Amino acid sequence: MSKYQHIKEEAYAANMQLPKLNLVVFTFGNVSAADRDLGVFAIKPSGVPYEDLSPEKMVIVDFDGNIVEGTLRPSSDTKTHAVLYKQCPEIGGVCHTHSTYATAWAQSHRDIPIYGTTHADHNTVDIPCAPPMSDEMIKGDYEYQTGYQILNCLSERNLSYKDIEMILIGNHAPFTWGKNADKAVYNSAVLEAIAQMAIITEQINPQVARLKDSLIQKHFERKHGPNSYYGQ
Amino acid sequence: MSKYQHIKEEAYAANMQLPKLNLVVFTFGNVSAADRDLGVFAIKPSGVPYEDLSPEKMVIVDFDGNIVEGTLRPSSDTKTHAVLYKQCPEIGGVCHTHSTYATAWAQSHRDIPIYGTTHADHNTVDIPCAPPMSDEMIKGDYEYQTGYQILNCLSERNLSYKDIEMILIGNHAPFTWGKNADKAVYNSAVLEAIAQMAIITEQINPQVARLKDSLIQKHFERKHGPNSYYGQ
Amino acid sequence: MSKYQHIKEEAYAANMQLPKLNLVVFTFGNVSAADRDLGVFAIKPSGVPYEDLSPEKMVIVDFDGNIVEGTLRPSSDTKTHAVLYKQCPEIGGVCHTHSTYATAWAQSHRDIPIYGTTHADHNTVDIPCAPPMSDEMIKGDYEYQTGYQILNCLSERNLSYKDIEMILIGNHAPFTWGKNADKAVYNSAVLEAIAQMAIITEQINPQVARLKDSLIQKHFERKHGPNSYYGQ
Amino acid sequence: MSKYQHIKEEAYAANMQLPKLNLVVFTFGNVSAADRDLGVFAIKPSGVPYEDLSPEKMVIVDFDGNIVEGTLRPSSDTKTHAVLYKQCPEIGGVCHTHSTYATAWAQSHRDIPIYGTTHADHNTVDIPCAPPMSDEMIKGDYEYQTGYQILNCLSERNLSYKDIEMILIGNHAPFTWGKNADKAVYNSAVLEAIAQMAIITEQINPQVARLKDSLIQKHFERKHGPNSYYGQ
Repeated sequence: MSKYQHIKEEAYAANMQLPKLNLVVFTFGNVSAADRDLGVFAIKPSGVPYEDLSPEKMVIVDFDGNIVEGTLRPSSDTKTHAVLYKQCPEIGGVCHTHSTYATAWAQSHRDIPIYGTTHADHNTVDIPCAPPMSDEMIKGDYEYQTGYQILNCLSERNLSYKDIEMILIGNHAPFTWGKNADKAVYNSAVLEAIAQMAIITEQINPQVARLKDSLIQKHFERKHGPNSYYGQ
Repeated sequence: MSKYQHIKEEAYAANMQLPKLNLVVFTFGNVSAADRDLGVFAIKPSGVPYEDLSPEKMVIVDFDGNIVEGTLRPSSDTKTHAVLYKQCPEIGGVCHTHSTYATAWAQSHRDIPIYGTTHADHNTVDIPCAPPMSDEMIKGDYEYQTGYQILNCLSERNLSYKDIEMILIGNHAPFTWGKNADKAVYNSAVLEAIAQMAIITEQINPQVARLKDSLIQKHFERKHGPNSYYGQ
Repeated sequence: MSKYQHIKEEAYAANMQLPKLNLVVFTFGNVSAADRDLGVFAIKPSGVPYEDLSPEKMVIVDFDGNIVEGTLRPSSDTKTHAVLYKQCPEIGGVCHTHSTYATAWAQSHRDIPIYGTTHADHNTVDIPCAPPMSDEMIKGDYEYQTGYQILNCLSERNLSYKDIEMILIGNHAPFTWGKNADKAVYNSAVLEAIAQMAIITEQINPQVARLKDSLIQKHFERKHGPNSYYGQ
Repeated sequence: MSKYQHIKEEAYAANMQLPKLNLVVFTFGNVSAADRDLGVFAIKPSGVPYEDLSPEKMVIVDFDGNIVEGTLRPSSDTKTHAVLYKQCPEIGGVCHTHSTYATAWAQSHRDIPIYGTTHADHNTVDIPCAPPMSDEMIKGDYEYQTGYQILNCLSERNLSYKDIEMILIGNHAPFTWGKNADKAVYNSAVLEAIAQMAIITEQINPQVARLKDSLIQKHFERKHGPNSYYGQ
């Protein structure tokens, strides 16, 4: 058995959540799971339908994007995952989808404003929409540069990858991450729910204001602060 | 067997309705079931996914919010449930979700206008959206104050908790209640349907008017009046 | 066995289609199936959840709304069905739902404009929205008057119940009918699809025009005209 | 066994994907699968519900629209399929649906602007909406003319059927095609996803701009260019 079996199984299980959560059709999306000690991650093979996946088909890649094990070609977005793992030392999973509402916000070049506690339960800031890449970046090593576009956007807004585990790439779609692959997928589903609620909120009340700071802090801290009292 | 087994089973069954009715994702929502004679209610444990629930995992809490039985931490919204049970003596179930359309109305700080008989079959008034809490209330005993925010909003509008079994908390999400846990969940699903129809109605006709009084009375009374003729 | 067994089974099967087609939640909706020779129809009992229905629970009612057989109370909308059967001699099934988009149009007091061939495959006219009833009609025999509100609306627009098998009641919801209960349910599902497409069409292009007459005639006649060539 | 068994099975399997992908209700839609060597295609019989289909019920038709084998009447849209097969020598499958969002764009008489990489992964241009046909074409051989309406629209925009495998017919609905029936169905599902995202994008940002050329080229070419690196 491969010494990477545990992350192949983790990546497989996480990828299979995407169609169940209505976050993908066909092959639009990919999740990876990293083993930090081994310095590699397991990722979905490119263009393979979810119903044909198995743990064995996952591809093992190192944090520079080199294939370490596997016979299939990895996801075309593999280098974006690699950059995130390399630059963000506490990430254990990355997820990319073209889910409907999050992608529509990305296509709109707008951050998703924080309108309610569903959002504040997960982040204290608007969900950033990174600008589309420059033509140079696009013509260069595109997927590699996509990773840096994410990191640069966080940096410009003085955010760490620990402050917010989700982002939109302008004109493209969302990326999310977390301590493991499951959490990355969870964040993609949460982002889609927040994205849908936000546009409906604006349709109900075009003059709606952002959530006030006291509620943002309260909801975030009851789940994530030092005195959090959510969960077991 | 616990003497609370009956309400554990009732709360369990009601919580399991939430994902089936598409009212929650992951762990976003909770239902409780009370036994008035015993002065306690059974509520979902905090942060436990629905597929991992069982009647035994429900937590028994008294109407002051003290844990009476159970090894897991109860829902972070437990004190809101406790306040409602304590102050509303005929309530046997409480439900809280972040369902998409009801939450969008809550985020919009707007009451849901009564536009049709689907609404009037259940209430005779616009569904209130309580204002967000003051910073003091938020920084104090937040979930406890949420219960009073609901009661104060009803009171300011001269409504009893028997007149309307659903409310929105501004920037947060809906709470519903009823004679038992099943009815509380039913009310959450009805509220979501009404909330969705209301915004679509406004999109079809931005000048739409509220339902006229004669239709409000007729529909409410055929279901709930002294001469009601709906149901068995 | 009851001599009405065949229409009980027909009505049961047709009612069970409503939740499958996502046209109802809980008990919001009812279908009936008539036997013209026997002068009666079978209809859903009032307020009974779909999962608890069986053919035996259907109630047999005559065209004046009198119960002929059955131990349960029939749907609260029974008299509307009775009026339609009595006044429209070629109807064999009637269906009433509160489906989301059709109900939103009803709440908006707008006819559904004919925007495409999906609509023209079924009707050649805008789908009428009958005005809400007068206070007198509402306070009188409400469900009986609802039947006449439908017939009066058709009459004012010079339409026969054979020209169009679906209508909206302002502030309330749709009614549909057809040669049998299955066709009535089919019409409710088609109406919901047309209603959803129509509002999205207006959102994409607020200046959109109605379908031109040549296309209306072509599509309707290829399905329903003397030289129709749709179906087997 | 029929010498057309393989395309009957291909057409059957592809038709059965339509309800699974939520692209049709009842009998609204049809897929065909061609055998270029035999010069025929297998197509869904007209008006037969999906649950009643079987490979044996598929109808074999030649590229002039003549029935070659089969006892049922073929889809009323058969001549449109025939024209596409005859004029586009590399097409192996054609699909027609009335899917909700694509049909709403068709009813709106608007091309679907290219707003993101989900779109650019499949096409480099706005998805054309062919104008409604002239009254003469409608009164003539309607379905045959529908095929030419598609080809004329592509031609006017200097597009080949290989450049884009999907189109909207104004006031009607989408047609898609591909190397086989599966790919044609895939294109219908992709079109529906793009159509939904596009209107939501415009609702989030009414001033949104089309995707810039560098991103269009990059995404299309990584999937379809000579140096593509997507898939296996």
